[in-house]
Amino acid sequence: MIIVMKPGASGESISQVTQAIETSGLVVHLSQGKEVTIIGVVGDKTKLDTRSIQLNPSVEKIVPITESYKLSNRKFHPLPSGFPVKNTVIGPGTMTIMAGPCAVETEEQMLSIARAVKKAGATMLRGGAFKPRTSPYSFQGLEEEGLRFLKTASEETGLATICEVTSAHAIELAEHYVDMLQVGARNMQNFELLKEVGKSGLPVLLKRGLSATIEEWLNAAEYIMSEGNEKVALCERGIRTFETATRNTLDLSAICVLKEKTHLPVIVDPSHATGVRHYVEPLAKAAVACGADGLMIEVHNDPAKALSDGPQSLNFPQFESVMSNLSGYITLAGRQLS
Amino acid sequence: MIIVMKPGASGESISQVTQAIETSGLVVHLSQGKEVTIIGVVGDKTKLDTRSIQLNPSVEKIVPITESYKLSNRKFHPLPSGFPVKNTVIGPGTMTIMAGPCAVETEEQMLSIARAVKKAGATMLRGGAFKPRTSPYSFQGLEEEGLRFLKTASEETGLATICEVTSAHAIELAEHYVDMLQVGARNMQNFELLKEVGKSGLPVLLKRGLSATIEEWLNAAEYIMSEGNEKVALCERGIRTFETATRNTLDLSAICVLKEKTHLPVIVDPSHATGVRHYVEPLAKAAVACGADGLMIEVHNDPAKALSDGPQSLNFPQFESVMSNLSGYITLAGRQLS
Amino acid sequence: MIIVMKPGASGESISQVTQAIETSGLVVHLSQGKEVTIIGVVGDKTKLDTRSIQLNPSVEKIVPITESYKLSNRKFHPLPSGFPVKNTVIGPGTMTIMAGPCAVETEEQMLSIARAVKKAGATMLRGGAFKPRTSPYSFQGLEEEGLRFLKTASEETGLATICEVTSAHAIELAEHYVDMLQVGARNMQNFELLKEVGKSGLPVLLKRGLSATIEEWLNAAEYIMSEGNEKVALCERGIRTFETATRNTLDLSAICVLKEKTHLPVIVDPSHATGVRHYVEPLAKAAVACGADGLMIEVHNDPAKALSDGPQSLNFPQFESVMSNLSGYITLAGRQLS
Amino acid sequence: MIIVMKPGASGESISQVTQAIETSGLVVHLSQGKEVTIIGVVGDKTKLDTRSIQLNPSVEKIVPITESYKLSNRKFHPLPSGFPVKNTVIGPGTMTIMAGPCAVETEEQMLSIARAVKKAGATMLRGGAFKPRTSPYSFQGLEEEGLRFLKTASEETGLATICEVTSAHAIELAEHYVDMLQVGARNMQNFELLKEVGKSGLPVLLKRGLSATIEEWLNAAEYIMSEGNEKVALCERGIRTFETATRNTLDLSAICVLKEKTHLPVIVDPSHATGVRHYVEPLAKAAVACGADGLMIEVHNDPAKALSDGPQSLNFPQFESVMSNLSGYITLAGRQLS
Repeated sequence: MIIVMKPGASGESISQVTQAIETSGLVVHLSQGKEVTIIGVVGDKTKLDTRSIQLNPSVEKIVPITESYKLSNRKFHPLPSGFPVKNTVIGPGTMTIMAGPCAVETEEQMLSIARAVKKAGATMLRGGAFKPRTSPYSFQGLEEEGLRFLKTASEETGLATICEVTSAHAIELAEHYVDMLQVGARNMQNFELLKEVGKSGLPVLLKRGLSATIEEWLNAAEYIMSEGNEKVALCERGIRTFETATRNTLDLSAICVLKEKTHLPVIVDPSHATGVRHYVEPLAKAAVACGADGLMIEVHNDPAKALSDGPQSLNFPQFESVMSNLSGYITLAGRQLS
Repeated sequence: MIIVMKPGASGESISQVTQAIETSGLVVHLSQGKEVTIIGVVGDKTKLDTRSIQLNPSVEKIVPITESYKLSNRKFHPLPSGFPVKNTVIGPGTMTIMAGPCAVETEEQMLSIARAVKKAGATMLRGGAFKPRTSPYSFQGLEEEGLRFLKTASEETGLATICEVTSAHAIELAEHYVDMLQVGARNMQNFELLKEVGKSGLPVLLKRGLSATIEEWLNAAEYIMSEGNEKVALCERGIRTFETATRNTLDLSAICVLKEKTHLPVIVDPSHATGVRHYVEPLAKAAVACGADGLMIEVHNDPAKALSDGPQSLNFPQFESVMSNLSGYITLAGRQLS
Repeated sequence: MIIVMKPGASGESISQVTQAIETSGLVVHLSQGKEVTIIGVVGDKTKLDTRSIQLNPSVEKIVPITESYKLSNRKFHPLPSGFPVKNTVIGPGTMTIMAGPCAVETEEQMLSIARAVKKAGATMLRGGAFKPRTSPYSFQGLEEEGLRFLKTASEETGLATICEVTSAHAIELAEHYVDMLQVGARNMQNFELLKEVGKSGLPVLLKRGLSATIEEWLNAAEYIMSEGNEKVALCERGIRTFETATRNTLDLSAICVLKEKTHLPVIVDPSHATGVRHYVEPLAKAAVACGADGLMIEVHNDPAKALSDGPQSLNFPQFESVMSNLSGYITLAGRQLS
Repeated sequence: MIIVMKPGASGESISQVTQAIETSGLVVHLSQGKEVTIIGVVGDKTKLDTRSIQLNPSVEKIVPITESYKLSNRKFHPLPSGFPVKNTVIGPGTMTIMAGPCAVETEEQMLSIARAVKKAGATMLRGGAFKPRTSPYSFQGLEEEGLRFLKTASEETGLATICEVTSAHAIELAEHYVDMLQVGARNMQNFELLKEVGKSGLPVLLKRGLSATIEEWLNAAEYIMSEGNEKVALCERGIRTFETATRNTLDLSAICVLKEKTHLPVIVDPSHATGVRHYVEPLAKAAVACGADGLMIEVHNDPAKALSDGPQSLNFPQFESVMSNLSGYITLAGRQLS
């Protein structure tokens, strides 16, 4: 529920309303514009006597929101949002390029990849230290050692870093080493983990679940934001369909829907979506063309020997070429690498 | 199966091979390049004694093709193909824009739409005269009268026209009025209809079935082509998934897969895929960015009163704006309106 | 729209209502029970002035139907329907077993299969003479010759026969040889074909499309029924999902939904749904347990050599065993082989 | 990889093989039958020199297993497995009926439901104390208080209890109160949680993810089992498809596939799968008919007022009626309530 106050409503009348809400056990989310104040109400609205609020002479109108997500809802926060990550920014006007290997393997590897992707124009370094693998017998990541390699590479190149976390313990470790946390597709509805990354205060990239609807995805973002962490970006990485020619089906129309429903930035991961190296460039262009705020692209020094997801990784010259071919599209879309 | 002849193989040795194939009841598809001749074999290859062909001294090699589609297969026809439709061309280097209403309604309507879309840059006029509707009680199209209106609009504006056909009878009628036939999503595996449009000799736009794999789609194209009609273009129009925020999920990664597997041109229909007017522009840009040879866009003089699919139709100023915003992307993609 | 007349409404008042409807260009579907007469209205209801009907003193109430299917709608025809096919019956209280090969191959084969399945308890003989195959280069069926073999087998054993049809021409031929027509999954929304089988007057088995919703399926049935042919049964044969362990996912909950929404009988085809021979028996039992009116099961004299779909066919002893293990379930479900 | 020893292989030769495996850092899973000993090898098989094992004269053969799940694999454990839960048993020959409310609400409620479902024949009591809800603003469960109510109800009626857990903390609490843990659909690939329930040693019910393939599901079970906990049962609860007539599509063919691929027991939850009360009985019958080892059914004292998932819950007389109508099917399937 959103309460729109009349233009020029006094501070006193605003706090009358917010107190009435808080007394009912609900949470107020205040948005004071130059002329109009908007009060978002978060929580179980059945507990609130809306008639008494309606009677307040400074209240313009009460807008019921059928969507259960509120903090991420564009109705309540009409301008697209953004936030800084170390020395870069994710959000409107910029194009974020997160590049790096699926899994962190060695310090040397991370340094060489970080240098190469930075040179080609990437603005963030990605690398997995905790790998949620389908089978318990597959390589599960270097954990803290991997985080350390990420940090070393970041210190040398200045690139901001992002790493997937899979448990409260992983978050605790990651906070000491990286600039942004990622919640993977398989954990999109691991609500305990969402609350934990919410509490961490670090920026979070929330990947879409393999068969999550856009509404479920925004509700998952709401779990993070309702812990007080508004630095959330969404990552489309393909959904599960009947088609087997690509690993997943990249749902670019989701960008259009998201841009309408939420103010949160949207990143697209064409590498995981398709699982095929040479589909990355055309789909990266398409993502930029239809409004993405950034891309996540897998780059590896030696894709043939990658411990994880080799076939979809680009090598250095390939990544350079993709970045160079993307630049016209980024400009056309009115954005720049930040 | 593809038989690659040695460079400089004589006409005589080539016809020895083709005769051996035809004697076995199979069909030969001859492709004579400047230096190399390639012989495609279409039909049940188990009937053929490949060893005797292998022994022919002019045969370089025999390449088995596991894909069951052959005429549409890029392995056999490595360069992208194209074909003229009236005074325009579909294929490499060009960007085809098919615009018009979902259903033909009146002569006046068609004339006004044709003039408007031509002015904005469309290269073809679309309009449905036979509408395959989910319910038998919905408007089913004007049939021959609708075809006549299409023709009138084409004569005045010079635009090539395309219309969906749903039966042998509809094809017979359409041949007198339009320049290209469309097979709709629901009929993608109506094999009798595919054979009939194949026999017609007119160019055919084959829409992807709602849950058709790319391989099934190419096999459907093969039904048309095996009747001797090679003027086939494919149209991605969204697939059926669990997501309900858009009517269908536009599968742009299918363009990447198709460009690899087939030489046929690929058109994208963002209007039907999403069912939402303001998603058309961003997805049209995305389609151009990742390699589409053309777009099919619904335009209506008065979308609010359209007899069919109004909510996804653009009005004239909206279509003009989309075309203008697309032009930079078309240029970047190395194509031009033809 | 359904008009419920008051108990004891005179024939005169009933015909006043039906005339008003027909004058508006709509079709009346009259259902006269012992006490109450119900008038179904089929067609574009916007053309009808319902207020004047409401004012007729013999009209009890007008029930709007949001579902666009009417003749198949259980709201309008509350008792489950059934119909005879040759000397057997499909519908409530009976269990129809359609058994036979995917494709008709030889006369001898059909005779031997017909004898075997009859002995084991089948009540109908199936066999494909027109095969809609994914690739144009696959075996497409014996056509009229195949129909003839079906008829011969029927004459000897007395079994009613069913065969898929794929075109108006196939229907014309089939009418001379078989007792029931089948519309396959790929043609479920081939509306021209639906109208043609509707006109034929023969009983029709309508298979569910690979990704057809239940509502689309019932609307497809409506196409057949609106041509005056009410002898329609529906066949669940698996839907397309992401799961690849079975060929399709058999949707048995669809039976529950159908039993609520429609009066038409429901047949289940576990052979095509799974594509695996030894899944047929457990899923046949499950189908019977949750309310199916019949089963379609593939049986072949020599599955290893079948021209089509061998891996899912049962041989004779396997089919006998399935039938014997099913009998307890059929009895528990309150049905008998007819 | 499975190593089959020759009949009568000595203990010494067996331990030569197991030592070689363990030296390579892999885990041995020994299965000693009366005549034959089978050695399962769990871990990264690339580390193992299989040739030296092959040369051991007591080794009959080495069977590579392409499936990455091993402990749950039926190839390695050919007989169906089962395990006790408090005073009941899940597994072959028995039919487990887990009944109770979606969410635990009050002590009184749990007592009354426990009495009612026990009387009707249920063998276990279910109830959620930790509810993973799509929105952070929905009721999330009573947590420890709810567990206490479950325990009280269990103490009075003797019913074994099961409760979903969503975090390591929830597991720690649950261990003091309930007899079996449940991992919900959304957490099926929350690998950290899987490891934790594995370590707990309590029996685990692993629900299938909304779009999990059967292979991913068995790999998730493997995460639990590789922690040394073999008391795992699987629960089919519907998958996500395009069909919206039911909440999910219950995939009963998965039972057939599971019975072939794994020895673990399979439970079916028709309540969550369909979300519709009156579809529970027919689908419960179908599940029993095709081989399920048990059912999970939602029962509530007052479904209209349930805090969670009311529309799918049965009231007491409805549950009694379902149990009574199921009994013939349970007997036919060769099972009994335990």
